[in-house]
Amino acid sequence: MRARKKPWTQEVLQEAMEQDLLIKEPEQLKGKWKKHLQISSLHVEIGSGKGDYFVGMSSLYPEEGWVGIEKDSVIAGYALRKSFGVVGTNGKFINDDAIKIDLWFNENEIDVIHLNFSDPWPKKAHHKRRLTTPSFGQTYQTLLKNGGQIILKSDNQQFFEDSLVVLSKSFELEDIWVDFRSKEHPEDIISEYEQRFIDLGQPIYRSIWRNRK
Amino acid sequence: MRARKKPWTQEVLQEAMEQDLLIKEPEQLKGKWKKHLQISSLHVEIGSGKGDYFVGMSSLYPEEGWVGIEKDSVIAGYALRKSFGVVGTNGKFINDDAIKIDLWFNENEIDVIHLNFSDPWPKKAHHKRRLTTPSFGQTYQTLLKNGGQIILKSDNQQFFEDSLVVLSKSFELEDIWVDFRSKEHPEDIISEYEQRFIDLGQPIYRSIWRNRK
Repeated sequence: MRARKKPWTQEVLQEAMEQDLLIKEPEQLKGKWKKHLQISSLHVEIGSGKGDYFVGMSSLYPEEGWVGIEKDSVIAGYALRKSFGVVGTNGKFINDDAIKIDLWFNENEIDVIHLNFSDPWPKKAHHKRRLTTPSFGQTYQTLLKNGGQIILKSDNQQFFEDSLVVLSKSFELEDIWVDFRSKEHPEDIISEYEQRFIDLGQPIYRSIWRNRK
Repeated sequence: MRARKKPWTQEVLQEAMEQDLLIKEPEQLKGKWKKHLQISSLHVEIGSGKGDYFVGMSSLYPEEGWVGIEKDSVIAGYALRKSFGVVGTNGKFINDDAIKIDLWFNENEIDVIHLNFSDPWPKKAHHKRRLTTPSFGQTYQTLLKNGGQIILKSDNQQFFEDSLVVLSKSFELEDIWVDFRSKEHPEDIISEYEQRFIDLGQPIYRSIWRNRK
């Protein structure tokens, strides 16, 4: 789903680039993210949407690096507008398609990959567009350090189940929750998007996978 | 939880033994189950309870072998009483503690292990009594043939989640359902025990794990 154009999008993206919040040429930072961000631990969220999680987590953990990726520039505009004055130098944003992620990060460069409420692409013919295809699974395994993690959160049963089966081929299950928000988890930011499902009483599924090379 | 004694238990067990339905000395059949049952595929249910699943599945799949294990003799009595005249020669029962399972089956002898609504032992100090401890996981890996399966079904969130983490260490996830009964599954018998949770609108969790040696 593409978002409708906003008159302020380009202005926000421009401003974010000038602030070195939006990275125009992420391939230039390949292998150098930790040095550039002056952090020792790198989190990458793929599909940051309107940025609640990216903004919240980079603020909650300022000593860790957070890179948000969102391909839709209108949606990225929302995330960036929210970031101004809140996100520190430990947070960077990429407005491009994650299919290119191996151009932006080196092998073993990432500590944690976050997939939050990724598009479930429910039709079977569209499953290849998901962020948890076997091909993406292999890419994540390469980019994550040994012992690195994938943290997957979703409201969508079928997407969650299918993703577990794919990820189990390359990763070791470290933890899983079939109703994550039935207990308090202040360590993990709730986005506006997630809150809607919680308000509807729907379970949030979450799993943590460990990379073993 | 031990069941209260019933006046008919001993009589039922005796009758079942005479019918070669209840196996008195399962260690005598070690390595010979398939030959004895005249089947090519062996299913073992650990913790058969009152036997609805054992009776239903062995009737639904008469060409496959089904061994039910239940340690409580009063509960086993219920299962056996239900089996008379229904379960064919493809179904056998063991009334003993599954801790001894490696005395009864050879390496690679079992095709599928079923764990249905196993006691969740919710207190941490009691987790070691579960049927999905790392130690049991290793035993299952040994007794299952290469490519064999564990099918785990539970109503208990915490037990299900913990078991997934343990099983992922030795097995490959083949399929998972966080709400198994939200769709029809006529291939899998619903016990009276399971029906209670379904009637309460609670999700049934299920996962299938593949043994890779």
